[in-house]
Formats: sequence, structure tokens, C-alpha cells
Amino acid sequence: MIKVGFIGLGQMGRPMARNLVQGGHTVQVHDTDTAAMAALADHGAIVCASVADCAAGVDVLITMLPNGDVVKAVLFDEGGAADALPDGAWIVDMSTVHPLASDGIAKEATARGFTFVDAPVGRTSDHAEKGQLLVLAGTDEAGVAHLAPLFDCMGSETVVTGAAGLGIRVKIINNYMSIALNALSAEAAALCEAIDLPLDTAMKVMSGTPAGNGHFTTTWPGKVLKGDLSPAFMIDLAHKDIGIALDLANQMHLPMPMGSAAREQFSAARAAGRGRQDWSAILEQVRASGGLPHH
Amino acid sequence: MIKVGFIGLGQMGRPMARNLVQGGHTVQVHDTDTAAMAALADHGAIVCASVADCAAGVDVLITMLPNGDVVKAVLFDEGGAADALPDGAWIVDMSTVHPLASDGIAKEATARGFTFVDAPVGRTSDHAEKGQLLVLAGTDEAGVAHLAPLFDCMGSETVVTGAAGLGIRVKIINNYMSIALNALSAEAAALCEAIDLPLDTAMKVMSGTPAGNGHFTTTWPGKVLKGDLSPAFMIDLAHKDIGIALDLANQMHLPMPMGSAAREQFSAARAAGRGRQDWSAILEQVRASGGLPHH
Amino acid sequence: MIKVGFIGLGQMGRPMARNLVQGGHTVQVHDTDTAAMAALADHGAIVCASVADCAAGVDVLITMLPNGDVVKAVLFDEGGAADALPDGAWIVDMSTVHPLASDGIAKEATARGFTFVDAPVGRTSDHAEKGQLLVLAGTDEAGVAHLAPLFDCMGSETVVTGAAGLGIRVKIINNYMSIALNALSAEAAALCEAIDLPLDTAMKVMSGTPAGNGHFTTTWPGKVLKGDLSPAFMIDLAHKDIGIALDLANQMHLPMPMGSAAREQFSAARAAGRGRQDWSAILEQVRASGGLPHH
Amino acid sequence: MIKVGFIGLGQMGRPMARNLVQGGHTVQVHDTDTAAMAALADHGAIVCASVADCAAGVDVLITMLPNGDVVKAVLFDEGGAADALPDGAWIVDMSTVHPLASDGIAKEATARGFTFVDAPVGRTSDHAEKGQLLVLAGTDEAGVAHLAPLFDCMGSETVVTGAAGLGIRVKIINNYMSIALNALSAEAAALCEAIDLPLDTAMKVMSGTPAGNGHFTTTWPGKVLKGDLSPAFMIDLAHKDIGIALDLANQMHLPMPMGSAAREQFSAARAAGRGRQDWSAILEQVRASGGLPHH
Repeated sequence: MIKVGFIGLGQMGRPMARNLVQGGHTVQVHDTDTAAMAALADHGAIVCASVADCAAGVDVLITMLPNGDVVKAVLFDEGGAADALPDGAWIVDMSTVHPLASDGIAKEATARGFTFVDAPVGRTSDHAEKGQLLVLAGTDEAGVAHLAPLFDCMGSETVVTGAAGLGIRVKIINNYMSIALNALSAEAAALCEAIDLPLDTAMKVMSGTPAGNGHFTTTWPGKVLKGDLSPAFMIDLAHKDIGIALDLANQMHLPMPMGSAAREQFSAARAAGRGRQDWSAILEQVRASGGLPHH
Repeated sequence: MIKVGFIGLGQMGRPMARNLVQGGHTVQVHDTDTAAMAALADHGAIVCASVADCAAGVDVLITMLPNGDVVKAVLFDEGGAADALPDGAWIVDMSTVHPLASDGIAKEATARGFTFVDAPVGRTSDHAEKGQLLVLAGTDEAGVAHLAPLFDCMGSETVVTGAAGLGIRVKIINNYMSIALNALSAEAAALCEAIDLPLDTAMKVMSGTPAGNGHFTTTWPGKVLKGDLSPAFMIDLAHKDIGIALDLANQMHLPMPMGSAAREQFSAARAAGRGRQDWSAILEQVRASGGLPHH
Repeated sequence: MIKVGFIGLGQMGRPMARNLVQGGHTVQVHDTDTAAMAALADHGAIVCASVADCAAGVDVLITMLPNGDVVKAVLFDEGGAADALPDGAWIVDMSTVHPLASDGIAKEATARGFTFVDAPVGRTSDHAEKGQLLVLAGTDEAGVAHLAPLFDCMGSETVVTGAAGLGIRVKIINNYMSIALNALSAEAAALCEAIDLPLDTAMKVMSGTPAGNGHFTTTWPGKVLKGDLSPAFMIDLAHKDIGIALDLANQMHLPMPMGSAAREQFSAARAAGRGRQDWSAILEQVRASGGLPHH
Repeated sequence: MIKVGFIGLGQMGRPMARNLVQGGHTVQVHDTDTAAMAALADHGAIVCASVADCAAGVDVLITMLPNGDVVKAVLFDEGGAADALPDGAWIVDMSTVHPLASDGIAKEATARGFTFVDAPVGRTSDHAEKGQLLVLAGTDEAGVAHLAPLFDCMGSETVVTGAAGLGIRVKIINNYMSIALNALSAEAAALCEAIDLPLDTAMKVMSGTPAGNGHFTTTWPGKVLKGDLSPAFMIDLAHKDIGIALDLANQMHLPMPMGSAAREQFSAARAAGRGRQDWSAILEQVRASGGLPHH
């Protein structure tokens, strides 16, 4: 049983704190929303009037807040949580904040003698309710072992990223990919509708191709990820095919801004002499555009 | 055993025609590349000096050509294949052409008394060699049954799309999604590298989320596809998170044109009053931008 | 006085042909729209039942048609205009067609012994009515001198581009820039409105800066166009400032897809080591992305 | 003669402060770069060891700093400039900062009894040297009259925007438009080169069209800005023409991300039923995409 402070009782924080209480931990909570605190009190949490009170005497202080500025203010403003937190306590920020902001907070927490772990969560508020979140822990095996009694109340799976800062980094990358992919999928689905192709049929086909399974696990491992750019499917042909789709979309008056942006990436790849390389070489093209070192 | 004409012996056409010969069919071939024809002759194909010769007397004429203009010319130019093709024969275009071009060719073929099927293929030239292509058949069960002896030589799986024109449509949509997703994945992978996050760690996490599994089978079925836009994950939050990733990328000097385009879609969704809807509502946003009818 | 055939009596072609008649030339006209022909007949044009009739006996045949496929068909289909056109006649295509299509038409016209000139027009249908179009002549001084009696009826200004194909090229480039700039201007104007800045105030300021006057005549001549990339305004600062505008737009829920795309170009420039170069060096960046040779 | 404090002696601040000294004002300067301060001392400025010293006893305190966070810290941190500044003094922030940050600073300055004016500058460091900057004053005529003795030393033109916050807003909009237009111009110029069209010829033509003169002063005033969307040049045709340019660029392997984004805007306009409206109606389209009220 761990003595925990929990600051931030929003849509995610509420069920997370409740699951800690129900897991048998002593949980002190704080939020600016008194109704949210009252609801937690009904479950057995100790309501605190200030962030300092909430941090007083705990082993682990968890923050679940809207952004890095708020986390920083809660922890380090005068009279803030850090001033009341016992020496050697752990601060676990489970918020989704800017990684560079998180790095700054980690640095200050460490300088003050605390152990800081970024541990944002994946999945949805439904999963939070059921204690089935995915915890992305920015620490090593030992750190996760220390925090497991808490993480296991809130989530059903913990990813050990191995080092400070990697939890929030992998969260941001994962969300980037999920969110942008959502919009791209919407373009593809809307184009199906515009050309009278049942979405079911399209989804059935895509479920067996990189369109539905992504490239990380299908086309890349055997090609670009092992440095083989000989073509299974050429950049030139990919450029041709996406051009047909965009032309079709344009005739249907359907805007496809992401597909348009994608085509220009393949155009740039062709300009860079990659036309007859495998389409997975688009990774090398994007890397080069960002000045990343030649593999 | 079917008597087949096969026009177009490129990287894909060569192994496809060879697999037909090896499957026991009588195959007449033609290409402008005489070396390609000679290679097929070694396998037992009958070499034809013209497209008309290649079409003469066959039950099914297969075309595997670079684009719709070439297919159209091969079939319908004076002295072309259609002039020599027996009444009632089937024309099966396995090329990847513009769907509207395919529709035009289908119309003319039908007007001349032939049965036209668009049946482009998925997967790579390796799969073509091994007879393991995916055939996307723009016809119904009866049509596929008629052509199965041929399709089964060239491919290991046939999708029955149900109607003329849907084969090529699903091919184009699938490739659109695959190709654009490839570029988007490259952005995410390059960002990992730019922020010192091992790609392995990121891929491990993404393998369990919509980032790696797509939205068609994860977030959409329980939400937008059944008309439920109540938020599991809000558009507003998706917009915030993708903004963090883009800011990070900008600080790292990494261009992310697709992610940028995606963010503007979420911005448009917020402007349309969808900020507190589920992120799968981006489908409704994209549909609306293309003037598709309100669900 | 020149004997002219004129094919294509749409919104632009009608007033152009009428101005030729009113300029004293003998004008034979053809269009598939008989009402359009009748209207021209009222002005004194000779109505022709076919494109061949329209080409018969003329010195110069002018085409003003929707796209290159139509121009090609009108000229070169069996029984088309070229079959009836006198040897050595001039064909002047004033349509806006794809430059590569225009090149193909020019080639065939020349092979048949005609002189082909691409001469698309600028400005609007109002200008066509008043004979005040801008003629972009894809020929040299001698060619323009030969056609001046016609051009001067239809337009008030003729640009001598100097060589075949350059008329249509400059038209397409000019329209590219005009059309894309229109959308970009709309983003800027909408952002003014979103942040309560009167458009008048913004337009007044922009009228004295590159925002209103473009870069061709302001920032480029003294810098990138003479190879000087020392910074008057650094790429890094441009990237910062456009980032502020985009952040503002995002907070206002205003999609800015073009500005977003622009920022990524500046990001790519920074990745390529151009951060401390003059902002006009973005030209070198874009050139490099297209594989154009290093200056 | 005014007693001035000047904080921020970077590439722009140095010559601006020097011009104030040379204009006869008493100028106290501060920067973290002591060499920069020493250089100003040679011109007759009074070097101050802290921002508080620099603010002590002055009538007007000018800040010229990298971003809003720095301006805020310089002014309002404990022991900052505001603590030393005489009651009723004016604070003039000439930095380019985020408008919302500027609004926050203005609010705090006003609450403390100071008069705050945002007055960022336009043009380049060369203009700063010569005292020929453009001052964008976020105040009314009376405010500008009060500050004119200073502005006239640093700049050759002052725009009276009329109200607090409009100076920085117009600066950001102007830079947005200038910077994005720069990248768009680069696309057009690179396309000229890719298709062998001399840039001189293109620039000559564009100098007489909206491509070179912008839409604010050419196509908009007679159309969209007065509510007339009847077509001088239709959205449908604009969409067609930009499509030709993009197709050409794609064939040349030249990425055109901004033009691609522009085309999708016109596609969206067509989907919204604007195909036969004037191309200036793209303003209404962009406004609608951002949820701005129907005109």
C-alpha cells in the first residue's frame, strides 16, 4: 500500500484516482473543481484544499493535468506541491504534455531531489473507468517495479520505455500517427462513397494490405528497415497510382489535402532520384528532408 | 482449359502469363517487346505478331498494360484486338487504370457484345511470380466462377466486389490509402529519430493502438460508423496533441506536410462545431467538405 | 485583311470572333452550338457546318476550345480541319490547354506543313468583349508581326515570348500563381477577420510590402536572383513568424492549409542548413526539392 | 526631447537605439550582451546594468526582444522593469511577439498604471540602420502624436492602426502573407525553370496580372469585397488550370505542396456549390471553412 497524492480530477483523472483508492492505496486528491473532489471523497479519497496539502507526506505524487504549464505551476510555484513533498518522493506526471516541457519539469524535479517519471496513458476514458489504460512509463524496469502497484490499479498494460522522457515521447508519436491516420482514413472512406464503392468492400480488401495493417509491420521490415531499397513496388508507380486517386477525387469535388501532401512527398522522392527504389524508401526521403543523417 | 489471349508482358504480365501456361491453358501472347515474347514462348506460350492475332479465336482476352489510353488503343484502334475477338468473348483488364477510363472501355466493350471485367491485382511482382496475387474482380459470383480457372493460376485470393467497375475502384482506394499511409508513417518514424526515441519502442506501442491498426477496425465501428459521435477521445484533444507533435517537429526542423494537413482538417472540424465530438467524427467532417450528404 | 477560320464560340470565343469580323477580316466560324453560330452570323461571320468547311481556304485557323483533346480531335481526326486547311496556313491555338498536349499538337501541325502558334489569352470575358485581352504569343517578333492584324482586334497587348510553346507555358504559370495566390490571400483575409483586424488596415500595410507586391519585384532581385543569400530577413525568423500566425489561426479554429504547407517548406530549408540565409533562399530550397541543378 | 529606456540590443535594436540617441533623446540601454551595450555607449547612450536601472526615471520604455515570454519576464518579473518604471510612463513593445501574448502584457501593464503600445516594425535590418523602418503602431492618432518624436528617429513611416493590439496583429498578418507568398513564388519560379520558360518572360507577364499584383487590389475590390460573386473567371476554370500546372509539375518531379493545398481549397469550393461563382469567392470558401459568419 502506497500513500499517494493525486492532482487533477478531470475526465481521466477521476476514474484513475478512484481505481487507486479501490486498489487499497491511501489517496489524497486535489482539483480546482470541488464537485470532482467530493465525488472522490465518496469513494474514500482524502480531499485536500491545496496542492501543497495534497503533496504533504506522500510517497508518490501523481499529476494528471491539461498541459505542461499547469503541471509546472502546480509543482513549482511558490507554495506549490514541491515545497510540501517529502524528500525523495516520486513525482509521476501522467498528463499529455509537450515533451520539451516535460524534460524541463523532470530537470527541476530531479534538482530538488525527487525522482521524476513521465507516464502518460493511452486508450480512452472508458478504459480509465475500467482500470484498463495503457501506461507508457518513461523509466526502466526498476522504476516500473516500484510503481507497478499503482500502475496496475489504473491500467492493464505498462510499456517500459527504458528511460526518462521516452514515455511522453512515445505517447506523442503514437497520437500523432493515430490522429493523422484518422484524417487520412476519412479521405479514403469519403472517396469510396464519392465513387459508389461500398465501404465494406474497401475495408475487406484493405484489411489484407498495408492500407489496413500499416507499413511498420508489413512492407518496411523486409525492405527499408534492413537497408534494401530494391523495388517490390516502385516509387514511380506509387506516384502514378496516388495521382489517379487524386484525379478521381478532384473530379468528384472531394478535397484530399493529406493525399495531396503525400503525392508531393513522392514527387520529391522522384526528384531525388528515388523513382525506381522501393516505395518504402519514402522513409529515407522524409528523413533526408529533415536533415537526418544518411543511413 | 481455356483459350486465352494475353497482351502486356511487363514485370507483372510476364509471370502472370507464364502461370496461365503452366496451369494448362492455351495462351497466346503479345507485347511490343519481342524478348519478353520469346521468354514466354520458352514456357509454351504462342507468340503473336499483333494484338489482333493475339485476340483471334480466344475465349478470354486479358490485358495488363501501363494505363487506360494504351488499353483503349490496343482494344479499339482500327485493326485492334476487338476487331479480331470472337463474339461473346470476355475481356479482362487486369491493369491499374483510371476508373473513369475503365468505365469508358467497359462501355465500349459491352456495346460491341463482349463481357468486360475489370480485375486489377494487388501485392507485388514477387507474388506474381509465385501465383499469389490478390485479384480484385469487378464482377459478381457468377463472373468470378467463370474466370476462376484463370484467376486461380495467377493469384491465391480473389475478391468478389460484386459489380462492374468496383474492382478497379477498390484497387485505387486501397493503393491511395497504402501509399499515403506510407508517407505518413515515414513522418512518424523520422520524428522518432529526431527526438531520440527508438523506433522499436514506438512500433511496439503503436502495434496495440489505432496508429498501427488503423481506424477502420478499431475506433470507427463502435462510433462514427454506427452514428455515435459522443466522445471517447475528443476532436479538441486530438487537435491539441497533433499540435504538440508538429511543434516538436518544427523545433527539430523536420518537415511534416501530411501531419500539417491533418491538423488543418481537425481545425476545420472544430470550426464546424465538432470540437467536443468523438475524433472518429473527422469522417463526417471530410465527407461534409466534399459535399457528401449528411448522414 | 486576313481570311480566318475560327473554331470554338464559347464565352471567350464569341466576342473574340466578333471582334475579328468587326476588324474587317473575313471570318468563317464553327461551333457545335448552332445558336452561338447564328449570333456570329448576325455580326457578319460566315457560318460553317463542319470544322473542315471552317478551315477551307483560310490563311489562319484559330481554335478556342476547352482542352487539348478537343483541339487535337478538331484538327487531326479524319475529316478534320487539318485535312481541309490550305498548305502553309497558320494554326493559332488560343485555348488554355496542357503545355505537353500543345507541344504534341504543334509537332503534328508542323509535320503536316502548317505553322503552329500557341497564343492563349489572359484577362476576363469582359476584356474579350472590349477587345482588350492580353495575348501570350508563343512565337518570335516575326510571327507576332504576321498575326498582329488579328491579335490587335482581340487584344490590347501582345507578349512576344520568343518561341513555340512559351505562350501556353507562361499562361499556365501565370494562372498557377494567380489562382494559388488567391487562396493564400483568402487565408490571410480570413485570419484578419478572425482576430478582429479590419481588412482595410491590413491591406493598407500590405500594399507597401512584399505581401502586397510579391517577391519577384521586391525581395528577390537584390538577393537570390543575383546569388546573394546573406540575410536581410532570415529563414529562421520567417519560420518563427509564420508559426505565430499558424498558432493564432489554430486557436481561432481557422484552417490555413497553404500557410501550413509554407511553414513546412521553411522547416525543410532549416533542415537543409539554410536557417541563417536570406528568406529569398526559399527559392533555392524549392529548386533543390525538385532536383533542379545547383546555382 | 524624451527620456527613453531601451531594452534589447540585437540586430534590429542596436541601430534603433542608436538612431534615438542621434535624434537627440536621452537613451538608457540594457542588454545581456555587454559588447552591444558598449557599442551603444560609444554613440552616447547610457549603459544600465539591469532592466530596472534602464527603466528608472524614463518617460518611455521601449522593448525589442525575441518573444513574448522574454518581454513579459523583463517587464514583470520581480525586480523587473515595471517595478522601477515611473507611474504613468509609456511602455512601447516593438518586438514581434504572439498577439495573444501581447494582449496579456498590455493588460498587465495597464493594470499597473502604464500606457502600453504594441508597435512592431516592418522592413529589414538595413532599414533599421537608416532609420527607415515601418512602424505599425497599435494606438490611435493621439498615441502616435505622443510617440512621433521617437518613431520618426527609427522609421520613415508610421501606420496608425487605431487601437491597442492592432499593431502586432497587422504585423503578423503581413508577415504571414509575405512569408507564405515567398514559398509560393518559389514554386512558380521553379516550375518555370523545370519547363524551360525564362523567368524574365514569366515575371514580365505576371507583373500585369493578379499573379504579380495580388488579389487585394485587383480582382477582389470589384467582386467578392462588394458581394458580387458573378463570374469574371469561374472557380471551375481556376480549378482546371491549377490542375494543369500541378500535373505538369508532377511530370517534372517538382513538388508543389502549396499549389496542391490551393487546389484542394478550390475542390472544396466546388463541393460547396461554388463552381460557377467568381474565383474571388474563394474568400467566402475559406471564411466558411473557419466558421466565420455568412456575409
